Amino acid sequence: MLLKSSIDDLKKIIKQENILSNMEERFCYAEDSANIKEQNALPDIVIFVETIEDVQNVLKYANAHNIPVTSRGAGTNTVGSCVPVQGGIILNFSKMNKILDFNPTDMTMRVQPGVILNDIKKLAESEKLFYPPDPSNFKVSTIGGSIAQSSGGAKSFKYGTTKDYILSLKVVLPDGVLMKIGSGTIKDAVGYHLNQLIIGSEGTLAIVVEAQLKLIPLPETSAVVTAYFNDYESATNAVSGIIKERIFPATIDFMDKNSINTVERFYPSGLKTDKECMLLVEVDGFETSMKSQLYRVEKALLENGAVDVTSVSDKEKMEAVWTARRASYGAAAKLAPDVVTDDVIVPRSSLSKMVRGCKDICEKHNLQVCIVGHVGDGNVHPQIVLNLENDEEFKHLTDAKAEIYQLACSLGGTISAEHGVGIEKMNYIDKILDSASIEYMKRIKNVFDPNGILNPGKILK
Amino acid sequence: MLLKSSIDDLKKIIKQENILSNMEERFCYAEDSANIKEQNALPDIVIFVETIEDVQNVLKYANAHNIPVTSRGAGTNTVGSCVPVQGGIILNFSKMNKILDFNPTDMTMRVQPGVILNDIKKLAESEKLFYPPDPSNFKVSTIGGSIAQSSGGAKSFKYGTTKDYILSLKVVLPDGVLMKIGSGTIKDAVGYHLNQLIIGSEGTLAIVVEAQLKLIPLPETSAVVTAYFNDYESATNAVSGIIKERIFPATIDFMDKNSINTVERFYPSGLKTDKECMLLVEVDGFETSMKSQLYRVEKALLENGAVDVTSVSDKEKMEAVWTARRASYGAAAKLAPDVVTDDVIVPRSSLSKMVRGCKDICEKHNLQVCIVGHVGDGNVHPQIVLNLENDEEFKHLTDAKAEIYQLACSLGGTISAEHGVGIEKMNYIDKILDSASIEYMKRIKNVFDPNGILNPGKILK
Repeated sequence: MLLKSSIDDLKKIIKQENILSNMEERFCYAEDSANIKEQNALPDIVIFVETIEDVQNVLKYANAHNIPVTSRGAGTNTVGSCVPVQGGIILNFSKMNKILDFNPTDMTMRVQPGVILNDIKKLAESEKLFYPPDPSNFKVSTIGGSIAQSSGGAKSFKYGTTKDYILSLKVVLPDGVLMKIGSGTIKDAVGYHLNQLIIGSEGTLAIVVEAQLKLIPLPETSAVVTAYFNDYESATNAVSGIIKERIFPATIDFMDKNSINTVERFYPSGLKTDKECMLLVEVDGFETSMKSQLYRVEKALLENGAVDVTSVSDKEKMEAVWTARRASYGAAAKLAPDVVTDDVIVPRSSLSKMVRGCKDICEKHNLQVCIVGHVGDGNVHPQIVLNLENDEEFKHLTDAKAEIYQLACSLGGTISAEHGVGIEKMNYIDKILDSASIEYMKRIKNVFDPNGILNPGKILK
Repeated sequence: MLLKSSIDDLKKIIKQENILSNMEERFCYAEDSANIKEQNALPDIVIFVETIEDVQNVLKYANAHNIPVTSRGAGTNTVGSCVPVQGGIILNFSKMNKILDFNPTDMTMRVQPGVILNDIKKLAESEKLFYPPDPSNFKVSTIGGSIAQSSGGAKSFKYGTTKDYILSLKVVLPDGVLMKIGSGTIKDAVGYHLNQLIIGSEGTLAIVVEAQLKLIPLPETSAVVTAYFNDYESATNAVSGIIKERIFPATIDFMDKNSINTVERFYPSGLKTDKECMLLVEVDGFETSMKSQLYRVEKALLENGAVDVTSVSDKEKMEAVWTARRASYGAAAKLAPDVVTDDVIVPRSSLSKMVRGCKDICEKHNLQVCIVGHVGDGNVHPQIVLNLENDEEFKHLTDAKAEIYQLACSLGGTISAEHGVGIEKMNYIDKILDSASIEYMKRIKNVFDPNGILNPGKILK
């Protein structure tokens, strides 16, 4: 709980209109999109920063007075990274939402952290350029959050994740010092990759106040093939079959029967509800290559037992397919008061074991689950639907999660592919990282944030 | 100078046959491929490690006795990263050269640090997979060196650099502890990206003893277009023109007139010697896309004033084109006793200024220069030929280098794109990094290597 004098001091640093300090206002910032209720999570003050200097001034004050600082973009992360578990200050970046520079010749864009991903994508596309990272919430989530969580998305298989598209960052350190890391060039071999250390650090090492992004040429065209399977193994084999055909799809996504049925129940999209699972394969590239790409994808699917193989290349129809896929979360959310989306990843060859394992584990614990995933990557998202306020169900969830993580580890995978650790997975991190890694992460945290003011209670215990 | 007792102790840890301690043997390890003569650089002992335990035992001993340890793969780096400026131990990885695992389904390969890049590439290609990083010395250089220097190569423009193809690392810390970082999966959002911190750290933070690599589907086919220009500006505009045609070439390389002429003099390859510069553009992808890709590349080249535009898609002829390009270093080396290859990078739009600047600066200092580069990236490699033992020429080189780096910085670029810092650029690092970055790099160095035994005298002063 902040002293009134600190709040008064902060009000001298920051314009009155950029401060929220009433209980009901602060209450809105006690949670984020993760389904995590932390009893003591309530910020003492919410500050809308407008400039780098604002961030510097707030951090300098907070660091001198040991006040926790939690940054927040759109708050769409699913692991509780924006939950102020120790109170203190929420730094709200929604007013630092300008695209500062767009250079199509150099294929770069310089942005403030509060810019919505979709705005970056749209501006890039206006010059036939492409910013590939596409977490499913890209229409509302911000680049700052994307950098903090090292976000992926459906197109990571071919195009990589956020970390592959950040050329340089400006960050503010806890003592208020502004540090520029990386360079505005495509390659940079000068010293240690500090920017890669900040990306994915969930606001625990430094606060990103500006980013320079790398763009690539926008593929000329794309098409989506959907296919249904009677079992997970065939779907997994089909993924390998596609790669053997020397096709590098932008996306290979997956929906299980439960997910398909739930979407059809709440957002009818014309999906077939009688099969065990479906694959959604997007290929992109030159117009001239599409016919043969589609032929080979379809061939690989059919050879591995796919049925109802269909391809669409019309833009609206493709969007309809992806809308159905993205609706899986919203649809699952209608099944029960809460839905918890998890995020595990395994080597592609263990995919069917992971999917079946998730299903079996949830069944054992009497939990309903809709499973989707970016299976080109081996990335599985079980969406577990339940009532979190029902103690028994909550206990089942906790048990199921631990078993799912254990399964992912035993299959050579890991417990977070693209959502991060936050609060959600903090207690499991020692199951997957060795003790030396954890120790060195703690030492690095201590180098950047010796007073532990930046997003305390996240990633590392 | 190591005590005799230390050498005797090390001989108890390591098999006799894996130790070199005679003066003439040690002398071979006083230098690497950089043209840097350091007066006191002579290792006290050279140890060929065969196992992870060897590395652990040597490091534990060295750390306890404050003995410098410099790792070495093929020693092909150009910035002196393998030069043992403070003597001590050279860890030679040439016997840890096994490919431990190759999983075509998961598209991964697990390798020891001494594996030659070309062996990785060839094995991947046998299953129609692709390991893209291709520094020009890939036929002799090792993956360990590639990780240490964060190597790029001609195909970085489309495919990125070494840092984009490392899934996980096993590293040994100075105290002998083995740490596993990253996971074997395509994505990983668990904690800080420690592996990205090790990549490019030139053996100053920890010693890489194993790496798991990410592979991608091998493009079906490729072709190379060569074109000549009467001035640099037209060539630069042509690069932008190609991108505007929505082509994403694997490579856009460059040779200036001097480089072309020098290659033709020593390794006649049929290049045209009367134009100011040439571009070599490699496109890849599906057979079905090639005709239209080549048409559009040629169109962009011709619209920007290219002459003698030729394309080849026959494998042998393509190899001949790249052999000529790669011969530029060897040819330059024949012009004078020494050749110093530098490595700067600027935003693509400043390319012609950078190339012309290199030429003018060298002319001003009476130095011959052959300029090549990966210009899709904005990466320029001036190859300065001289006699390093001529004090006057050496002074000119030093002055010219400082001016070239200053120019790169003033154009928004940086002083190393893909070669690293080593000894070569250590004195210039404060010209490009801000003081906070340097300070935090030093603190990180201190976290990993508090006794400063790992490759001392590199990157940071």
